[in-house]
Amino acid sequence: MVVGIFGGGQLGRMLALAGYPLGVRCRILDPSPDSSAGQVTEQIIGAYDDPNALARFIDGLDVATYEFEHVPLGAVHSVAERRAVFPPARAVEIVQDRLSQKAFLQNLGIPTAPFAPVGSRAELEQAAASVGLPAVLKTRFAGYDGKGQFILRKAEALDSGWSLLGQTPLILEASVPFQRELSLITVADKGGKVAFYPLVENHHPEHILKWTIAPAPACSPSLQSEAEECALKIIHALRYVGVLAIEFFQYEGRLIVNEIAPRVHNSGHWTLEGADTSQFENHLRAILGLPVGSTAMRGCALMINLIGDLDDATRWLAVPGAHLHLYGKKPRQGRKLGHVTLCAEHPKMLGARLEELRRLLPASIQLPERLDFG
Amino acid sequence: MVVGIFGGGQLGRMLALAGYPLGVRCRILDPSPDSSAGQVTEQIIGAYDDPNALARFIDGLDVATYEFEHVPLGAVHSVAERRAVFPPARAVEIVQDRLSQKAFLQNLGIPTAPFAPVGSRAELEQAAASVGLPAVLKTRFAGYDGKGQFILRKAEALDSGWSLLGQTPLILEASVPFQRELSLITVADKGGKVAFYPLVENHHPEHILKWTIAPAPACSPSLQSEAEECALKIIHALRYVGVLAIEFFQYEGRLIVNEIAPRVHNSGHWTLEGADTSQFENHLRAILGLPVGSTAMRGCALMINLIGDLDDATRWLAVPGAHLHLYGKKPRQGRKLGHVTLCAEHPKMLGARLEELRRLLPASIQLPERLDFG
Repeated sequence: MVVGIFGGGQLGRMLALAGYPLGVRCRILDPSPDSSAGQVTEQIIGAYDDPNALARFIDGLDVATYEFEHVPLGAVHSVAERRAVFPPARAVEIVQDRLSQKAFLQNLGIPTAPFAPVGSRAELEQAAASVGLPAVLKTRFAGYDGKGQFILRKAEALDSGWSLLGQTPLILEASVPFQRELSLITVADKGGKVAFYPLVENHHPEHILKWTIAPAPACSPSLQSEAEECALKIIHALRYVGVLAIEFFQYEGRLIVNEIAPRVHNSGHWTLEGADTSQFENHLRAILGLPVGSTAMRGCALMINLIGDLDDATRWLAVPGAHLHLYGKKPRQGRKLGHVTLCAEHPKMLGARLEELRRLLPASIQLPERLDFG
Repeated sequence: MVVGIFGGGQLGRMLALAGYPLGVRCRILDPSPDSSAGQVTEQIIGAYDDPNALARFIDGLDVATYEFEHVPLGAVHSVAERRAVFPPARAVEIVQDRLSQKAFLQNLGIPTAPFAPVGSRAELEQAAASVGLPAVLKTRFAGYDGKGQFILRKAEALDSGWSLLGQTPLILEASVPFQRELSLITVADKGGKVAFYPLVENHHPEHILKWTIAPAPACSPSLQSEAEECALKIIHALRYVGVLAIEFFQYEGRLIVNEIAPRVHNSGHWTLEGADTSQFENHLRAILGLPVGSTAMRGCALMINLIGDLDDATRWLAVPGAHLHLYGKKPRQGRKLGHVTLCAEHPKMLGARLEELRRLLPASIQLPERLDFG
């Protein structure tokens, strides 16, 4: 079986590595000749919308998928005409535009932060009035990890926000004074069966995921059900197949959807060691029509992103339960170069191992001050 | 870090896959252009003793290792002159000759079955008298999975045994009426620290490993200690670094060493999902001087070899806890094509999952009739 993946980042790499034991060969399409995924499997080096590259990409392919959602839609449709593509192209189309994503969620009755489209300076004024301040002005297209965002705390900031971002279509989203950020990784198979990993807690200081705690501490079964209901609505609406990630804000005991990602997700990396079947393997199983594996957790886990520089990462393997994943990427400020998953049978053991790890990690890597599983 | 591996079979493949997350790139040396490992990483296609192939093999290498022990010794020594090689060449040298292996164990005071060298028809007569019948006549060199073996039940069979195998140096080993076969996978780091996985129980109907139960049922702590003491003697005698596998017969409550393998081992495949750190990752960690990871088990596991043909292996993924590992090899009678590891939190759950799996597997795959954890 051959799976084509749009994008050659670390998500593609981990998909490719999960494929080999299943007898699945992944083929990457990515313009960068030294992509992370291309180091571990076949890569077509070419632009996503280059017809020659696409022709080579789909040759002999059983199914195509994505490891990032900003693939040119024309390329996705062109592949979808000749090969199965999962998740469905419609999912990618919706999430590429923050406005259509929010409208899609709203139409399904899924709670989101108040939002309004901003196409002009005048519309920004109206949006600020309707949504309220503080709010976040975001580019509708191609933003991630806090890029293309501007926080409007007061009305005086509208001019700065507009002059910074006003040249592209925008959306204004109310700032939700949330208690914490959670996410749900789900996997839907071709028969409509859906499996859920437990909700996890994510920490994004400086707008980039620094660590994930799995399972999210102090999560009631009703909160998990609330999250799963959101997921089911989205999956049914899109006839979704594959892994779907949903980011939530927890606010006054309820969940608000922040955004969705039609792919494997950074907040699911802990599943490699912390769950019976990883998100990567389950995504491949689902899109290939194979039975989806158990999503049950094994103990608890803390996933720590290694961003910017690595120091001597292999030293950290001395901590029991520490698993290292390097992506083969050159160090650069703000770049995700790898992650460590710290596993333990129970929260107390995880806390103790975190203290061991803290002594070895350089100060540049941000860690939770403590783990409170409540 | 670049690790060179002599041999491109499934063991090399699983080593290479374990390397990527650690930032380790493996390079295979194997004469076969469609080797199992060569499908997942760089391969030098060439004979093990071809100087040109060896020169390309060692270029930029940090350390070399083996995935099978019948590498030509000259090749190992030639690499060892220019690069670190672990496990030490001496270990390979000893195990290549069943006679030197048995003598080595005997000198360390490790119990083995009675044995005697056989270099002539007359020596066979003497050996049968000293060792006793029934006994197994084996080629001293290059035998595995029951190949090059002849069972002598009665004195009348000596002629047949001699005419079948007499053209090569032989060893006669007493047949031990053992209760069961066990094995121990250990890993020794460069600092002399040794970690042990639990003893597992192996089943070899028709002289080829069909399944492994981990941990071995009804194993006393003293049996585990006995096995670990044997391992430590071998490791210290050889200044051993890396994974070492020891196969035992359990006979009248004690352990007798059947043979040792200076490499990762089929009876350790369950560690991929069933232990905190797999034998493959730990072998790489050890030979690269990285900290060795926890060898603690997670629940219990049953590893089933897929031999000869695969049927539709992916169907079996429907059983919770079933993990599939295919080796990318063409089906052929008696060939190991992959394995399934069935994991569960406790023996009862494992037994129930085995019954589910039994209903899906073709009759050609041998399974335990039941799992009795005592």
